[in-house]
Amino acid sequence: MENKKRMRIEDLGEFGFIARFSANFLKKLPAGVLGIGDDCAVLPWKGSKKLLVTTDLLIDGVHFLGEKISPLDLGYKSLAVNLSDIAAMGGRPRWAFLSIAIPPETEIAWLDEFFRGWRQLAARTGVRLLGGDTTKSPKGLVINVAILGEAEGRHLKYRSSARPGDIVAVTGKLGEAEGGLRLILRNISNKNLRLEGRYLIRRHYRPRPHLEEGQFLAGQPEVRAMMDVSDGIDSDLRRIMERSGCGVRVFLEQLPVSNQLRKCGHEFGWDLDEVAAAGGEDYCLLLTVEARKFPALAEKFYRRFGRPLPAIGQITGEKNQLRYFRNGQPVVLSKSGYDHFKL
Amino acid sequence: MENKKRMRIEDLGEFGFIARFSANFLKKLPAGVLGIGDDCAVLPWKGSKKLLVTTDLLIDGVHFLGEKISPLDLGYKSLAVNLSDIAAMGGRPRWAFLSIAIPPETEIAWLDEFFRGWRQLAARTGVRLLGGDTTKSPKGLVINVAILGEAEGRHLKYRSSARPGDIVAVTGKLGEAEGGLRLILRNISNKNLRLEGRYLIRRHYRPRPHLEEGQFLAGQPEVRAMMDVSDGIDSDLRRIMERSGCGVRVFLEQLPVSNQLRKCGHEFGWDLDEVAAAGGEDYCLLLTVEARKFPALAEKFYRRFGRPLPAIGQITGEKNQLRYFRNGQPVVLSKSGYDHFKL
Repeated sequence: MENKKRMRIEDLGEFGFIARFSANFLKKLPAGVLGIGDDCAVLPWKGSKKLLVTTDLLIDGVHFLGEKISPLDLGYKSLAVNLSDIAAMGGRPRWAFLSIAIPPETEIAWLDEFFRGWRQLAARTGVRLLGGDTTKSPKGLVINVAILGEAEGRHLKYRSSARPGDIVAVTGKLGEAEGGLRLILRNISNKNLRLEGRYLIRRHYRPRPHLEEGQFLAGQPEVRAMMDVSDGIDSDLRRIMERSGCGVRVFLEQLPVSNQLRKCGHEFGWDLDEVAAAGGEDYCLLLTVEARKFPALAEKFYRRFGRPLPAIGQITGEKNQLRYFRNGQPVVLSKSGYDHFKL
Repeated sequence: MENKKRMRIEDLGEFGFIARFSANFLKKLPAGVLGIGDDCAVLPWKGSKKLLVTTDLLIDGVHFLGEKISPLDLGYKSLAVNLSDIAAMGGRPRWAFLSIAIPPETEIAWLDEFFRGWRQLAARTGVRLLGGDTTKSPKGLVINVAILGEAEGRHLKYRSSARPGDIVAVTGKLGEAEGGLRLILRNISNKNLRLEGRYLIRRHYRPRPHLEEGQFLAGQPEVRAMMDVSDGIDSDLRRIMERSGCGVRVFLEQLPVSNQLRKCGHEFGWDLDEVAAAGGEDYCLLLTVEARKFPALAEKFYRRFGRPLPAIGQITGEKNQLRYFRNGQPVVLSKSGYDHFKL
């Protein structure tokens, strides 16, 4: 008992935290309301439409490095990571609320740039800033963004709908943002980086939320489960497994890795499986598709977006078993996912 | 120009910040949508109902003192201050989203207590926690709460509806939370405090959002402007003045000050005008009422809530002029309001 009382949040981890504290809040939700456990909460809206709500807290030193990222990119990215949660449900983002705690020595020119970056993406995606909160911060910048979006109720895609046999696919390349982060942390100045390295860094700082892809896929009944790739597929697939009560086989040779990432990985000696499977922040979409309809869907996706929809694995009935294979042989990944409580 | 670029956020202040950065976001909002500038944003909802959205960011060392407040009280208060914004519009709170950044050494028992405090108020007010975000914090606790509520569109009360001649009233005693904070900062142990002092501290830690009062007042057409008292009436009245394009006269002898605050003020030598007018966090409601209908409203309020609705001043046509009087004589207050950017 005493031991339990002395347990710390770092012992529990993020999944343990959510499991411990969400149980009490999930009881007896009214019909048509979805709470904790997916990319967005879902509420009744007008007629057949549903209201989506998502919120993300970004802390200097945890989610971004205030001394490295430009204010323009930070403004853009603060909005982008939240829009990605709306994309993951197949929704359309509508309204944003920005809470920001600012160290008092921050220059106004810095904030002008932050809001310019925000507006670049807001204008492109039709999101209106409706409110928020501003305050000082004694230590480092803190940003909380909440987004409200909408979607047709029958089009919504959840994490809990994967079924054994489904094909697992992704809508973009994997590992680029992680590759970019590794380069940023090496402190190589931009002019000493090749074009490929600069490309990866840009992919880290300016992720594109896959809103059109999400809306298109939401309209396809053969798409079963969907979420965005925020912590890396290793971590994100575990969430689909938990919510759907299934397992996953991932075929490493099928992970879509760009030439830019290959070149940098070769130059710096990275394990590309690890970068692609356990690296976070790509913000493309991860989905499961009824197997026999997958080829036709991939073709439709190609016609619509001009690029393939790579299959990277398959859902199994082995509850909570995430297994990796390379050319048919089981392999063990050297690292697994990102936990928001491990420092 | 160079000077302007080097300006810092502390030079701008909170009002300056909002003025500078909100302008761009307020343009061309669709009909039926209200953005930045009131206690809540207002969105279309079902039929005649409106959706209210409010969000508040709470930072250790700015909005609360992590080493002093109990986790039970902090959980309660994090929700209470947000519910107060819903009360200010006359709405009913429905759904909550909690983002929390937690230092890794935090004990789980601490979090259990935090959520117990949250639930005490959530259960009483019918608010359901539907989501949020959890992450580690390298330095101190960070809490962001977003609340969605609902209200009849024709009942909504805004900051912008005050008219010259209106009576200004408040729904509760003023300055108690500020008195409590002053005692907390003196580090007097609880057992060395009189009952009155303990009462003030409790009023600081456990503010009651005036939801029933807000809903009742929202239904009265003679109530024109309304907001909650979060930064102190001195600061909050300035917001009504700005939004309504008017001025205010405050009659200091009419400010409702409790016997508990009087006793402590006497003991510790406080300027009670300053405590009552410039002290924040009382979270009662501040409203303006069509003058000739005020007596009947105050009587109705008394019948409904068993306590008076004190008139504390009057709206004037002198734009942005906030003037204090004591027994008819103009006086100058020694302090004015709280600014979230001044450290």
